[in-house]
Amino acid sequence: MGLYQRWRWLRLPELPACKLHTASVPTPPHWLVERIGLFEELWAAQVQRLASKAQKEPRTIKISLPGGQKVDAVAWNTTPYQLARQISLTLADTAVAAQVNGEPYDMERPLETDSDLRFLTFDSPEGKAVFWHSSTHILGAAAEQFLGAILCRGPSTQCGFYHDFFLGKERTVQGTDLPVLEQICQEIAAAAQPFRRLEASQDQLRQLFKDNPFKLRLIEEKVTGPTATVYGCGMLVDLCQGPHLRHTGQIGRLKLLTNSSSLWRSSGAPETLQRVSGISFPTAELLRAWEAQREEAVSRDHRRVGKEQELFFFHELSPGSCFFLPRGTRVYNALVAFIRAEYARRGFSEVKTPTMFSTKLWEQSGHWEHYREDMFALKPPGSDRSMSSQSGCSAKHPTNMFALKPMNCPAHCLIFAHRPRSWRELPLRLADFGALHRAEASGSLGGLTRLWRFQQDDAHIFCAPDQLEREIQGCLDFLRSVYAILGFSFHLALSTRPSGFLGEPCLWDQAEQVLQRSLEDFGEPWDLNPGDGAFYGPKIDVHLHDALGRPHQCGTIQLDFQLPLRFNLQYKGKAGTLEQPVLIHRAVLGSVERLLGVLAESCGGKWPLWLSPFQVVVIPVGTKQEEYAREVQQNLQAAGLVSDLDADSGLTLSRRVRRAQLAFYNFQFVVGQKEQSKRTVNIRTRNNRQLGEWDLTKAVQRLLELQNTRVPNAEEIF
Amino acid sequence: MGLYQRWRWLRLPELPACKLHTASVPTPPHWLVERIGLFEELWAAQVQRLASKAQKEPRTIKISLPGGQKVDAVAWNTTPYQLARQISLTLADTAVAAQVNGEPYDMERPLETDSDLRFLTFDSPEGKAVFWHSSTHILGAAAEQFLGAILCRGPSTQCGFYHDFFLGKERTVQGTDLPVLEQICQEIAAAAQPFRRLEASQDQLRQLFKDNPFKLRLIEEKVTGPTATVYGCGMLVDLCQGPHLRHTGQIGRLKLLTNSSSLWRSSGAPETLQRVSGISFPTAELLRAWEAQREEAVSRDHRRVGKEQELFFFHELSPGSCFFLPRGTRVYNALVAFIRAEYARRGFSEVKTPTMFSTKLWEQSGHWEHYREDMFALKPPGSDRSMSSQSGCSAKHPTNMFALKPMNCPAHCLIFAHRPRSWRELPLRLADFGALHRAEASGSLGGLTRLWRFQQDDAHIFCAPDQLEREIQGCLDFLRSVYAILGFSFHLALSTRPSGFLGEPCLWDQAEQVLQRSLEDFGEPWDLNPGDGAFYGPKIDVHLHDALGRPHQCGTIQLDFQLPLRFNLQYKGKAGTLEQPVLIHRAVLGSVERLLGVLAESCGGKWPLWLSPFQVVVIPVGTKQEEYAREVQQNLQAAGLVSDLDADSGLTLSRRVRRAQLAFYNFQFVVGQKEQSKRTVNIRTRNNRQLGEWDLTKAVQRLLELQNTRVPNAEEIF
Repeated sequence: MGLYQRWRWLRLPELPACKLHTASVPTPPHWLVERIGLFEELWAAQVQRLASKAQKEPRTIKISLPGGQKVDAVAWNTTPYQLARQISLTLADTAVAAQVNGEPYDMERPLETDSDLRFLTFDSPEGKAVFWHSSTHILGAAAEQFLGAILCRGPSTQCGFYHDFFLGKERTVQGTDLPVLEQICQEIAAAAQPFRRLEASQDQLRQLFKDNPFKLRLIEEKVTGPTATVYGCGMLVDLCQGPHLRHTGQIGRLKLLTNSSSLWRSSGAPETLQRVSGISFPTAELLRAWEAQREEAVSRDHRRVGKEQELFFFHELSPGSCFFLPRGTRVYNALVAFIRAEYARRGFSEVKTPTMFSTKLWEQSGHWEHYREDMFALKPPGSDRSMSSQSGCSAKHPTNMFALKPMNCPAHCLIFAHRPRSWRELPLRLADFGALHRAEASGSLGGLTRLWRFQQDDAHIFCAPDQLEREIQGCLDFLRSVYAILGFSFHLALSTRPSGFLGEPCLWDQAEQVLQRSLEDFGEPWDLNPGDGAFYGPKIDVHLHDALGRPHQCGTIQLDFQLPLRFNLQYKGKAGTLEQPVLIHRAVLGSVERLLGVLAESCGGKWPLWLSPFQVVVIPVGTKQEEYAREVQQNLQAAGLVSDLDADSGLTLSRRVRRAQLAFYNFQFVVGQKEQSKRTVNIRTRNNRQLGEWDLTKAVQRLLELQNTRVPNAEEIF
Repeated sequence: MGLYQRWRWLRLPELPACKLHTASVPTPPHWLVERIGLFEELWAAQVQRLASKAQKEPRTIKISLPGGQKVDAVAWNTTPYQLARQISLTLADTAVAAQVNGEPYDMERPLETDSDLRFLTFDSPEGKAVFWHSSTHILGAAAEQFLGAILCRGPSTQCGFYHDFFLGKERTVQGTDLPVLEQICQEIAAAAQPFRRLEASQDQLRQLFKDNPFKLRLIEEKVTGPTATVYGCGMLVDLCQGPHLRHTGQIGRLKLLTNSSSLWRSSGAPETLQRVSGISFPTAELLRAWEAQREEAVSRDHRRVGKEQELFFFHELSPGSCFFLPRGTRVYNALVAFIRAEYARRGFSEVKTPTMFSTKLWEQSGHWEHYREDMFALKPPGSDRSMSSQSGCSAKHPTNMFALKPMNCPAHCLIFAHRPRSWRELPLRLADFGALHRAEASGSLGGLTRLWRFQQDDAHIFCAPDQLEREIQGCLDFLRSVYAILGFSFHLALSTRPSGFLGEPCLWDQAEQVLQRSLEDFGEPWDLNPGDGAFYGPKIDVHLHDALGRPHQCGTIQLDFQLPLRFNLQYKGKAGTLEQPVLIHRAVLGSVERLLGVLAESCGGKWPLWLSPFQVVVIPVGTKQEEYAREVQQNLQAAGLVSDLDADSGLTLSRRVRRAQLAFYNFQFVVGQKEQSKRTVNIRTRNNRQLGEWDLTKAVQRLLELQNTRVPNAEEIF
């Protein structure tokens, strides 16, 4: 790629001014011109160095391709892109980066040694990360050129990218800037500018970024080796690990979404930055699909569903706590009843434990040391007068202080320990729906996702070490069957001991093996996250995927070697000696509140019958059938079904049926003269399926059956 | 009754020393001798005065007797006792006092005017009060004579009597004193000493009690008229309103129960007193019956049942809060499910509200002003550092403070007010099982009766004034049907406006009339407690009686005119104008925890099937049937029944059946070879009724049926 091609974007006096950027900074600042000049010099030198290296030491290397095929390549010369073209032109065009021996790699970067080669496309999370990371460079370039921004950092995120930059202490990005920035980004993309990877020494780095104090700070703090990587793309030069796309032309569509402020927190004083976020896709179709899905998600937002369906609301007089209205309570109770039924089947015993405990308990459990900031402490009753003298030292000497429980485990340990235990009682599976309180920062509270007060389908299993495997299998089976009924798929990951783990290594070995064996026997795919476990035990993380494919972390299976020690839990073993039980923390729904929010979004307010707060509406054809309709409604209500009456004589029958269907009532029971005389009902579903005339008693029976079996599609199989 | 008869008890030098009291004070103190001397003088004068009065102004008065009969009597001469003898000798012997024109009256006190005469016996609460009040005089006499006590006060209680007296600053009553005191009391009773009523002037009173500073203080503070009543009985003279028994011989059996200390709190400095309590009965048989019942009550004490049946326990790390173990949670959940089913039938809507609220809410509701001492206040999260500066003024300016809810009503007001309401939505019946916290004094905590943390079957009905009557009737019907299933009888009382009531008098008039009409329509007996309502509205108090006949206040129906004002609650009326709803607080169980305790004692741990945490135990005849037995047990468990397995091969079958019956398992399913091969079970009840062989599926079905209908006697009608 010639020099001109790259320099034509730069509005230098000696070159024709770039026609694209007439709206932007009229003359590029001096430092920008200097920087790109220096980059080009270094780049030319690197190109020459590599070429001579390849020429002086010509070396054939073996490359193993994705299909298993092995090919020969030339060290310091052959690129992944060239090899991709040998496989298919489509692959070469759509690959966003390569993986060489498991490491991410630019498609145009020459291979150096024998390698195992894979290609990343936009379809994979890793591919998306490269794609969005490359996109944020375009955004950075646009911000430099249009706003004269000093760039700080521009990472990809789970769902797009953002770029933080500095505009001076006074200026901020305006919403009206976004369309112009987006236009410039699109033009840079259309120009298909290549990403060029340069290895630069620390001196060269400092030279390149001498006008950017943020990058200089990063170089100082983060660059530990003799060299670091820099990428050039168009007029932009940025400090960056890579890899990137081959060129900006791979970005078919880019959309900027929000502008906000953020904070630069390096070792110096904090500085207010501007943040612009966006998303991009290889094609316009993919952007359109994403936009449609986003609209769907907004319309499904559980806060919106909660308000529209009158499920719950929030009030400033009790922040972080949800008020569940009658219909929301109905869903909540149905979820709890579901888990309770599973508990009965699976040998879990429900208990009820207090809400507040002496801080002595939290000292014993370790929460007071590690978790105190997130706990709600209570003034002991009648301590108002003594508070002022006490508060100064309350942290260190919490005499007679109380705190609301953030977790149930210590209370369950007290239950285990309240009398001597025998091996015959194990496994002891204690379940608790007690309200938990965690003092999340007020700013992070939002809908049902993050709350101060919530309940969990929390259980703790106390078992003997040789019962562990069976219990873990039981927990996994529990997860699978609940998620199947809720319509969620899920993904499992085993997190093993972190570097600072506590306890006996051999105990960890055994436990990790047990978890691994259980996962293998379970037969669902799972990942290994080495070193990601808690310091007190390994765990299985569970991510469920809702009906929109979005991941949520709800369930968990967590081993704990520490609490049994801290509470000195013991049982009399078969041999008569005192032994220590293993403790498993587990939850399937996790926070019932949060799961209710996930479900509301997942079903978009169209609740399955068994959870539905809109099961049946009874609609009398005329006023003469109103009394019978009311009787039908009370009949349903008394049977434990949620039913309403729509006797609004101001609306025609068909309007009322339509209204009921739009409100997602699973079933409409229409009653006219004939139905009244025969004590029947005429049934329709919310999808307007006509089920015809049914005997009232039989219809109620059938609904109860469908409710009790928790089918997802009662309307279809009624 | 001659002088001698009375004086022979007094150990005066000039009379033979009383042979009974050799163990007591060797010589009666000087003041005691003086006091009785003065009393006898005054008494003689009074006898003479009355006789001459009757003689000078002979007057016939009309007395209406209990049967409706009217008789003539002589004023200042004829006594109720004489008239009782005319009716029946038994009545004359067993009457403890009379009621003359509704006022209590000594049996031996001459009638003065035309009167309506009734007789009180020990069977009535009023009769018991007279009986026990008379008994405490005996105790006082014994304390004076045996311990040289200075008497303070001796009232009757709901269940016996006590006497407080002073023994000087150093001496206390010892447990070993009680048998001696009791012996002296019995002797005084056996001596059948008469109670003599004397009207004394203030001067005479001060003379009689010149050596008793406590009585002098009482005379000063309480005696406002020119005269007051004094009673003499044996050597005792005491300041007392009366009435009393005719003589101590009516007390067939007296038993002293406890000794403790108490406090004299008059306007002077407090003084530590000695308290001895006891109980007494007309006959030895009645005492024996009471003792048997007391033993039964102790064995039924819910704390004992709770421990023996592993229902719940308490722990010092969470005082005032109960830990419900699996079996206790089972009972708890069954109670809640019962009320939930009633809610569905009766159109109540369950909601779930937060646990902690800003103190601004409690200021609005008035709780912060009136109830603050009993609330648990919370430090706002992350306020540790600011607490010390804030705490000094936190009482007055509770900025950003929180408190745990002691009641649900304000939260329900927020729900009512969170969006505009229409008359069409009324009555709105919001029910909540939320955990409540009330900071009772630690000393008053005890078992499940008084707790810091508990839940109620709390509901608030928001209705239009013209819906009030129907709602009250609904509440009464709710009470009756729940108590019927729980096996409780109950008693109702209407409490009307107190002197300091708030709100419009006409509103009160209407409301009290509505409550009265509802009570009359309801058809159960009820009492009127004028002036006993809360300042914010009239109420119906509900006292239930458990299987032992003991009263408990659990349910309540309470009108509230104030909260709707404080929360500015409004709804759009039929006419389109904004109107204010009436609020009804109601509960049937009251505290679920407390009611569970009452039930545990009432059934003595023999739970009815639907509440039982011991529904079925499966007992295999031999080890070969163990697997089938386990299958049966899991079958029951999965159906939602509580079942256990007793496969202890170390015990014979009959020992295991017996053990199960002693543990009050409602049913025992015995499975042998025959049952295994036919998939049946052989059923016995805890009363050892043999129900024979049943098909397993049918047996489970039948149990579920009996459970769901909540019958009290499943074992009898299986």
